[in-house]
Amino acid sequence: MSPPAHDDSAAPPLLLRNDREGVATLTLNRPQARNALSVGLMAALQDELDAIDGDRSVRVVVLAGAGPAFCAGHDLREIRANPGREAYEALFVQCSRLMLTINRIRQPVIARVHGIATAAGCQLVATCDLAYCTADTRFATPGVNIGLFCSTPMVALTRAVGRKAAMEMLLLGEMIDAEEAMRIGLVNRAVPADRLDDTVAVAASRIASKSPLTLAIGKEAFYQQIHMDVEAAYAHTARVMTENMMARDAAEGIDAFLEKRQPTWCGQ
Amino acid sequence: MSPPAHDDSAAPPLLLRNDREGVATLTLNRPQARNALSVGLMAALQDELDAIDGDRSVRVVVLAGAGPAFCAGHDLREIRANPGREAYEALFVQCSRLMLTINRIRQPVIARVHGIATAAGCQLVATCDLAYCTADTRFATPGVNIGLFCSTPMVALTRAVGRKAAMEMLLLGEMIDAEEAMRIGLVNRAVPADRLDDTVAVAASRIASKSPLTLAIGKEAFYQQIHMDVEAAYAHTARVMTENMMARDAAEGIDAFLEKRQPTWCGQ
Amino acid sequence: MSPPAHDDSAAPPLLLRNDREGVATLTLNRPQARNALSVGLMAALQDELDAIDGDRSVRVVVLAGAGPAFCAGHDLREIRANPGREAYEALFVQCSRLMLTINRIRQPVIARVHGIATAAGCQLVATCDLAYCTADTRFATPGVNIGLFCSTPMVALTRAVGRKAAMEMLLLGEMIDAEEAMRIGLVNRAVPADRLDDTVAVAASRIASKSPLTLAIGKEAFYQQIHMDVEAAYAHTARVMTENMMARDAAEGIDAFLEKRQPTWCGQ
Repeated sequence: MSPPAHDDSAAPPLLLRNDREGVATLTLNRPQARNALSVGLMAALQDELDAIDGDRSVRVVVLAGAGPAFCAGHDLREIRANPGREAYEALFVQCSRLMLTINRIRQPVIARVHGIATAAGCQLVATCDLAYCTADTRFATPGVNIGLFCSTPMVALTRAVGRKAAMEMLLLGEMIDAEEAMRIGLVNRAVPADRLDDTVAVAASRIASKSPLTLAIGKEAFYQQIHMDVEAAYAHTARVMTENMMARDAAEGIDAFLEKRQPTWCGQ
Repeated sequence: MSPPAHDDSAAPPLLLRNDREGVATLTLNRPQARNALSVGLMAALQDELDAIDGDRSVRVVVLAGAGPAFCAGHDLREIRANPGREAYEALFVQCSRLMLTINRIRQPVIARVHGIATAAGCQLVATCDLAYCTADTRFATPGVNIGLFCSTPMVALTRAVGRKAAMEMLLLGEMIDAEEAMRIGLVNRAVPADRLDDTVAVAASRIASKSPLTLAIGKEAFYQQIHMDVEAAYAHTARVMTENMMARDAAEGIDAFLEKRQPTWCGQ
Repeated sequence: MSPPAHDDSAAPPLLLRNDREGVATLTLNRPQARNALSVGLMAALQDELDAIDGDRSVRVVVLAGAGPAFCAGHDLREIRANPGREAYEALFVQCSRLMLTINRIRQPVIARVHGIATAAGCQLVATCDLAYCTADTRFATPGVNIGLFCSTPMVALTRAVGRKAAMEMLLLGEMIDAEEAMRIGLVNRAVPADRLDDTVAVAASRIASKSPLTLAIGKEAFYQQIHMDVEAAYAHTARVMTENMMARDAAEGIDAFLEKRQPTWCGQ
C-alpha cells in the first residue's frame, strides 16, 4: 500500500482542545505563524465551537494561542496564494460567521490574550464575551498599513470600544498597549504575565459554577436586546425573565439563596 | 368598631417624598429589606413619578434609599410567595415600565447611591439620568448566582457601560467597587461618604436653576435621538432646536447671556 | 465708479486653508468671536470640505481655531439678529449638514483643540474622526444655561461618550477639563500645549502615508456599519473587504509587507 496522496498525519493539529471541569480550552496552534487564521484554522475553530454549542458538559470556553502571540490575524501568504473575488469573499464570509458563532453559542467565551492580537486577532478579542490579557500584550488593527482596511474587525471593535478610540486604531494602524486596551474597554483586565492563567481560570471556574441554562438564557438575551430600542428591549427581556423564572434552576437558586445554602443546578 | 381587616396604618410608608426648592427627593423606605423593590414599593414609586411628571413645581428628582443600602433588587421572598407565569410576567412588566418612566418624565432624575446597588437596584442606577455614589458603594448584577439572569437590568446596564464590562458583571455576578463603577461609566462620580449629600445637592440645585421647559425638551430629545441613525437624529434634533428657539425662555436666556445678566425663566 | 454696496474686501477670511504634504489644515478665523460658527463661517467650512472631498491631493484634514479658543459654538448675536422659525431652521439644518459632511468626506478629519470647545464647538470635536487637545482645554455643552438645550450637539456627543457623562455635560452645562474629556472618550489624547502641533502633525503625516483609497473605503464603511445590527454589519463589511482586496493598493500593500519593503500606493 502506498501512503495517501495528501498525508498530513504528521502535521500538528491546527487547534488544540482541552476539557477540564466544564471548561473547554481551545488553543490556536500555529505558533510559527503567530496563529494566523488560515482557512484551515478557522474551519477547525468553527467546527469545535459548533460541537461545543451542543455539548452540555461544557460550561465555558477559553480561547488561547500557542507560542509567542495570541493571534496575528489572517494568513496573508495564503490569501495572496489564492487570489480572486470568490476566494476573498469566501474568506471574509467564513471569518464573519466564525465571529458571530462566538457570540451565538450557549457558553460564554473568554479570550486569554498574550503577545500580540492584531487585525482578525484583535477582532477575536473584541468579539469574545470576556477578555483578559498580560500587561505586555499589544493590540492593533493594522490593515490600513497594507492597503487593506480592517473593515470586518471594525465591526467587533466599534461594538466594544468608543468611536474615537476605534478610529485611532483603525486610521493609524499602530499598536496600543494593554493598559490602553483596558482603558478603552477592549479587554476586561490586564494582569502580570504570570497571573494570566490564574485570572482566566478563576473567571472560568466561577462561570462554570453557575446554572448552564441561566447562562445560555442570559447570553442569548444579551446579544438579542443590545441593538433594540429600549422599549423593545424591555418587552423582550421581560418575557425572557418570565421564562427564566419558570425554570427549575431559578426556583432552586432563589430557594437556596433564601435558605443560605448552595444551589444544585439541574440545567432545566 | 373593630379594626379594619388589613390594618397597615401603623406601617411606615414604602416611599418617602421630600420637596425643597424644586428638588423632589424620593427615598425608598424598606431599610430592613435593603429597599428591595416589592410590588408595593414599585407601585408607590410609579405613582410618585407619574405625579411629578405633571407637577411643574418639581424641577429635578433625587432617588435615594433609607438605611444601609440604596437598593438590593427585587423582593425574592415575595416573588417565591407568588409563583406562576402570570405573576412573574406582571412583575417584570411593572418593573420595566418603572424604569422607562424614569427616562420619560420631564424632570432629570439623579440617583443618590450608597451601600449596595444590586440587580434591579443596579438597574435603577444605570437608568437614572445621573448617578453619584459614596466611595464604598458596591454594585452587582448577581442574578446569575441564583439561576435568574439579570436580563432586564441588562437593558439599562448595556446602555450605560461598555460590553466587556457589562458582560463581566452579568456572567460573574460579583460586586464591583465604586471606583470601577465610575471607570466604566455606571456612575458619574464616587465621592467620600460625607460628601455625597452635598454633591447631589449641588447638582440638583444647578439643574433646578435652569429653565424647566428647556430641561424637558432636552431630556425628551436625548432618549428619542439616541437610537436613531445619525442622519435621522440630526433631522429630529434640528426640529427640536428650532422649536426650542421659538420659546420665550430661549430668547430670554440668550438676551441675558449677551447682556451679562441672570435670566428669568417663565417656563414657556 | 462707486465702491460696492457691501465691500468686505478688507475683512480677513473667515476660514484659512493651508496645504502641506497631503495635509489640509482648515483654521476657523474669527478669533475675536472665539470662532463662533456664524452662517458665513459654516458656509465657508462647508464649501472647503466639499472641495476637499473631490481633491485627491488631500489625504487628511486638520480642523483648528485661530486665537485663544477652538470654537465657542454658534454666533448668538447673529441668531438673535435674525429671528424667526425659518431662520432658525435654516441655521440648524446648515449646521447638521456640516457635521454630517465631516463624517462623509473621503479624508479623515482631525480636530486640533485648544482653549475652549463649547456647544457646536464641542460638537465639532465629538464629530471629527480624531481629536487631540491641550491639557488646559475645557469643553462644555452649555446651552441649558441660556434656555437652549444643546440638542444637535447631543447627537455627536452621545455617539462619542457614554450616557452618564453626556447627560452630566448636557444637564449641568458646566466645563469639563481635558483629562475628563479624554477619560470619557471625547478626545483621543490631551497633551501639553507645546506638544499639540507635533502630536497632530505626527498623526496627520502617518495617515497621509497610507493608501488614500484604503482610507476612503475604511472611513465610509466605519459610519455605514456602526448603526447596523451585527449580522448586517458583517454582511456589509465582508463585501467591503472583498472589494478592498480587489484593489491594486491591497495587493501592493500585502506584497510589500511579505517582502519587507515599503509599499507604493497608486490610489486604485
